Amino acid sequence: MQRVVIKLSGSIFKQPFDLNYIKVLCESFVSLLNEGIQPIIVSGGGEVARNYINALRAFGVDETTLDEIGISVSRLNAKIIIGALGASAYPLVPSSMDELSLALNLGKIVVLGGLYPGHSTNATAALVAEKSRAVLFVNATDVDGVYTADPKIDKNARKYDQIDTKTLFNLVTSSPIIAGSYDLFDPLAIKIIERSNIRTKIVLCTPQNILNAIKGSKVGTEIVIK
Amino acid sequence: MQRVVIKLSGSIFKQPFDLNYIKVLCESFVSLLNEGIQPIIVSGGGEVARNYINALRAFGVDETTLDEIGISVSRLNAKIIIGALGASAYPLVPSSMDELSLALNLGKIVVLGGLYPGHSTNATAALVAEKSRAVLFVNATDVDGVYTADPKIDKNARKYDQIDTKTLFNLVTSSPIIAGSYDLFDPLAIKIIERSNIRTKIVLCTPQNILNAIKGSKVGTEIVIK
Amino acid sequence: MQRVVIKLSGSIFKQPFDLNYIKVLCESFVSLLNEGIQPIIVSGGGEVARNYINALRAFGVDETTLDEIGISVSRLNAKIIIGALGASAYPLVPSSMDELSLALNLGKIVVLGGLYPGHSTNATAALVAEKSRAVLFVNATDVDGVYTADPKIDKNARKYDQIDTKTLFNLVTSSPIIAGSYDLFDPLAIKIIERSNIRTKIVLCTPQNILNAIKGSKVGTEIVIK
Amino acid sequence: MQRVVIKLSGSIFKQPFDLNYIKVLCESFVSLLNEGIQPIIVSGGGEVARNYINALRAFGVDETTLDEIGISVSRLNAKIIIGALGASAYPLVPSSMDELSLALNLGKIVVLGGLYPGHSTNATAALVAEKSRAVLFVNATDVDGVYTADPKIDKNARKYDQIDTKTLFNLVTSSPIIAGSYDLFDPLAIKIIERSNIRTKIVLCTPQNILNAIKGSKVGTEIVIK
Amino acid sequence: MQRVVIKLSGSIFKQPFDLNYIKVLCESFVSLLNEGIQPIIVSGGGEVARNYINALRAFGVDETTLDEIGISVSRLNAKIIIGALGASAYPLVPSSMDELSLALNLGKIVVLGGLYPGHSTNATAALVAEKSRAVLFVNATDVDGVYTADPKIDKNARKYDQIDTKTLFNLVTSSPIIAGSYDLFDPLAIKIIERSNIRTKIVLCTPQNILNAIKGSKVGTEIVIK
Amino acid sequence: MQRVVIKLSGSIFKQPFDLNYIKVLCESFVSLLNEGIQPIIVSGGGEVARNYINALRAFGVDETTLDEIGISVSRLNAKIIIGALGASAYPLVPSSMDELSLALNLGKIVVLGGLYPGHSTNATAALVAEKSRAVLFVNATDVDGVYTADPKIDKNARKYDQIDTKTLFNLVTSSPIIAGSYDLFDPLAIKIIERSNIRTKIVLCTPQNILNAIKGSKVGTEIVIK
Repeated sequence: MQRVVIKLSGSIFKQPFDLNYIKVLCESFVSLLNEGIQPIIVSGGGEVARNYINALRAFGVDETTLDEIGISVSRLNAKIIIGALGASAYPLVPSSMDELSLALNLGKIVVLGGLYPGHSTNATAALVAEKSRAVLFVNATDVDGVYTADPKIDKNARKYDQIDTKTLFNLVTSSPIIAGSYDLFDPLAIKIIERSNIRTKIVLCTPQNILNAIKGSKVGTEIVIK
Repeated sequence: MQRVVIKLSGSIFKQPFDLNYIKVLCESFVSLLNEGIQPIIVSGGGEVARNYINALRAFGVDETTLDEIGISVSRLNAKIIIGALGASAYPLVPSSMDELSLALNLGKIVVLGGLYPGHSTNATAALVAEKSRAVLFVNATDVDGVYTADPKIDKNARKYDQIDTKTLFNLVTSSPIIAGSYDLFDPLAIKIIERSNIRTKIVLCTPQNILNAIKGSKVGTEIVIK
Repeated sequence: MQRVVIKLSGSIFKQPFDLNYIKVLCESFVSLLNEGIQPIIVSGGGEVARNYINALRAFGVDETTLDEIGISVSRLNAKIIIGALGASAYPLVPSSMDELSLALNLGKIVVLGGLYPGHSTNATAALVAEKSRAVLFVNATDVDGVYTADPKIDKNARKYDQIDTKTLFNLVTSSPIIAGSYDLFDPLAIKIIERSNIRTKIVLCTPQNILNAIKGSKVGTEIVIK
Repeated sequence: MQRVVIKLSGSIFKQPFDLNYIKVLCESFVSLLNEGIQPIIVSGGGEVARNYINALRAFGVDETTLDEIGISVSRLNAKIIIGALGASAYPLVPSSMDELSLALNLGKIVVLGGLYPGHSTNATAALVAEKSRAVLFVNATDVDGVYTADPKIDKNARKYDQIDTKTLFNLVTSSPIIAGSYDLFDPLAIKIIERSNIRTKIVLCTPQNILNAIKGSKVGTEIVIK
Repeated sequence: MQRVVIKLSGSIFKQPFDLNYIKVLCESFVSLLNEGIQPIIVSGGGEVARNYINALRAFGVDETTLDEIGISVSRLNAKIIIGALGASAYPLVPSSMDELSLALNLGKIVVLGGLYPGHSTNATAALVAEKSRAVLFVNATDVDGVYTADPKIDKNARKYDQIDTKTLFNLVTSSPIIAGSYDLFDPLAIKIIERSNIRTKIVLCTPQNILNAIKGSKVGTEIVIK
Repeated sequence: MQRVVIKLSGSIFKQPFDLNYIKVLCESFVSLLNEGIQPIIVSGGGEVARNYINALRAFGVDETTLDEIGISVSRLNAKIIIGALGASAYPLVPSSMDELSLALNLGKIVVLGGLYPGHSTNATAALVAEKSRAVLFVNATDVDGVYTADPKIDKNARKYDQIDTKTLFNLVTSSPIIAGSYDLFDPLAIKIIERSNIRTKIVLCTPQNILNAIKGSKVGTEIVIK
């Protein structure tokens, strides 16, 4: 069975939950499974994660522990997706690559949160794509692709249909402001898709965009290994 | 070292976090530790737990799994307390009685969330008091004691200074409305404090009330085993 | 596959083991599986559990730890059932709801002991029924149903064909003697079957009674949610 | 702190428990701890283990699984010892060498059951002595030492004050009847005490004999490495 | 599905790895699986294990810990076999009998290293054969069978076509030099194949020899239970 | 107790082990502990890791799994350091941040290998420094600091006494050849020391250099946060 990894932006889990949106999103994952494609979903942390992290940072807690809190919340978010998927989902949230290996064998949709402190969920999703030998990694986020500049600020910003990893790396490392506002990709995620030559697309998170990205329609920005 | 178990109502963890309140509360726990009393804190789930549980219940998820979600959130809340306690806290949240046994040995404040589906955090706290041979179990909640009726409804409702377990059992089981609105104690928690003869007090959650309850001042409602 | 949860009274594991009885009982479980019904068995602790618990209570050990000893023995008893079931059984005894979820996927008979201190194995079995979405929970015990009074004492005691949860709750909580002598159900188990509306029958533990209860013949006492 | 490993014969856990005997035995272990010697106790399985193993063997279960059942029961027996020791004992039963390493650090009496299928508890105790760098391994059993022949059969059987490992090896391997009736030592246990040159004594299990063996009085049979 | 256990001598993992040899060996295991025989592979430790063990022994580390190091390296070697087997292999290395039970259910080739300190990988492989109810245990080693004496020293040494367990026991225990140079079998492994009557063959490790041993051709030495 | 994290280059573990060098290195760590500074050692993978990784890469295994193999070998290397440290070392290799938290409490030298796939051991060591609130992170490697260019190629290459994180980031990302030959630091490690403002020095791995770096003598290259 072919596999695709879909990273869900934490913004999908803003409070209160938009149950209809989540339900429709999950129906599109089930439809993929029914067509013989095994989706692997990686949930971000979002608003609840930020609330807990900010509180703990105010108490002076170290950043590694804060990363772990973010991972815990992203796993709760994974439980929301599993609940919405029902019987099509593997019932547990794998917390290691070994658990992921076993979970994938059962032929259901597998849903994870974060795995390791120091990693963004983008980097985790890239490792998951590597481990599961996925044919595609879709980063479903809250912008509709990678821009030459922040489109909210720069009216002349232009969306890339394709961007190579070198250019993307420069974009996310040279300009901290853009990296911060987009949170599209971090250097580690780029390094991983480079080393394993993983096909990757960045799309605005909607059921239709995700299906289009998987079925080969032109949508968002495709990352080209270079 | 003498031990006291303090159950913190989930209402303490309402969003956004009241960092000052939590900080002051935790300073009172540290002062207990400095006086040679080892506090064991059990955190409830509160608002965030309810949000996740309600979403999953809407998706048709079974109640045992919902209990487990509540436990996961209560453990995140325990991390907030650990963060506020700093170096006075055992750094991890025990997830079993065996871990609790080992944690207690280190002489720091130990903070837990829930442990088992089907259990309220009150019942969990009662078991923790039993296992740790605590001299007192303080249920710090959002009312200032047990009343003969719901004081918000019945103007003649009178607070008990003491209540025996039989009367409390009848109160929480015969009247579902009162049980629901107070959430003071459930039948299992009562059964546990009865079987092990655990001294128990119900107080409004403030640093001063908790210290008063531990130091023997009259506050809230004391439960008498019968 | 439809699932039924069968709670086996600890009395089945009295010493020395009645191997023929256990073998015949297990053959009835295998016949259910062959008909497309997945049995989930929850074993009680019985005589061996009591011996260990009494010894440790004499040494002054706390009640939570004694519950854990009872759980350990009930898991050994589960191993006896697994041994008698042979290749029809899932080979391990799940020790958490997560393990149970995975075990159920393999389509074999799953056998558990207790799971949590503070819980009777009845309450555990009710949670297992909830988690596994079982269509029926059969409490196979050493009496043939629920009586209005203790039939050994009161000649006029009458067996209920049906009993509602409210009446059962009053029966098991108001009269400690009856609760003690029957050990049919505890308040927590009743609360769980109420909250999830689980069909429940109490029968004398024989292979035929268990099969009759599952196939819809009138046997023992049925608990009606109210 | 110097350490001694004491293997307790399963015969100590015959049913019903002899609570007084166990209590007195444990008081002798506490007295050792108070003198600055850390006892490490390894409990055998005994009668309850045999009952469960025989039942499962009758059901055709494989021998490795039966060994695991024996280990489970020996760990329950370890819990009996921990209960009798009270606050002088490490509260958990280590189930691996790593857990043992950590447990030993806390300076309390550590109590184990078996660890690995295929191993007698004698061999386990020898490994535990090796891992913990114990100065002495006392095998407290139901005979008062090693004999030239079975003293119940052969009136001329003579007890060894000392026996070398080669002679003992020949004794326990060449004569299956004697090996079976004594269950003093198995080839693996001998190999382990040989390879690490562990001082070892076999004594009849009484508090006084164990203390005498540790304090250097002549008692039972000493095994000499050769 | 019938199962065979194949113990691979640590000598197969000498540095640098002979990738072609390992690849061909693994293709023969895949061919067995395709014919409906489930191979279970147990890898030894070999040269890398010896290097780490010798270094740690020089630092004065205890022998149990050294055994554990050997187990860790043998599990790395198991990963080499899993990598060479690709999709035909269960992806993880079971580290307990429980994990092995679950792994076997998935119908793939299962690969282990050592399991327990104090055990040779031969003894481990014998336990694995017992637990998995294998029809045959093939000890694939660096000699082509059991000899009456060391063939490198004694020109008149004769290979056994069959050897009974008593004779083999005497051979490996009476003569430490031969036991050391051959490392064919240790007393514990012999005891296990005796107690469970496991068919066992010792062959020089080549793909053809292993297939011949499994398919019934005369090769190496067969061990007969006595 | 103040803590320092010392990352040991995998080159220290080249085969055969240089036992004297490792012994002397470890004596310097023990001397730090005796002066009240708790060293936390992070071992790299080195030659053995490369051998296993290259073999598995030749078999077509995914990069995440290869990272995990590297982690396993680095943990074996950590065992070598623990063995050389003897009683001054925490006896186990923590495999998670939670285990690290508990290990640090015991006041001994703690030794880790890698923790997470996708991370270099440099990045792991940086996270460990963050989690343990270390006052200094010493990267003990096989060059004596950071150079403006590869000193083996460019005769005019000049060593930095100090380098800021921005310049170092550009150095390790813009020039893949230099990054590869030095393996000093990767982008993730730099990001971590930046976000937590961790004092960091890169030195040639010798006992004296490490001690000098910790005691404030000028040695190697210091990384300045910018």
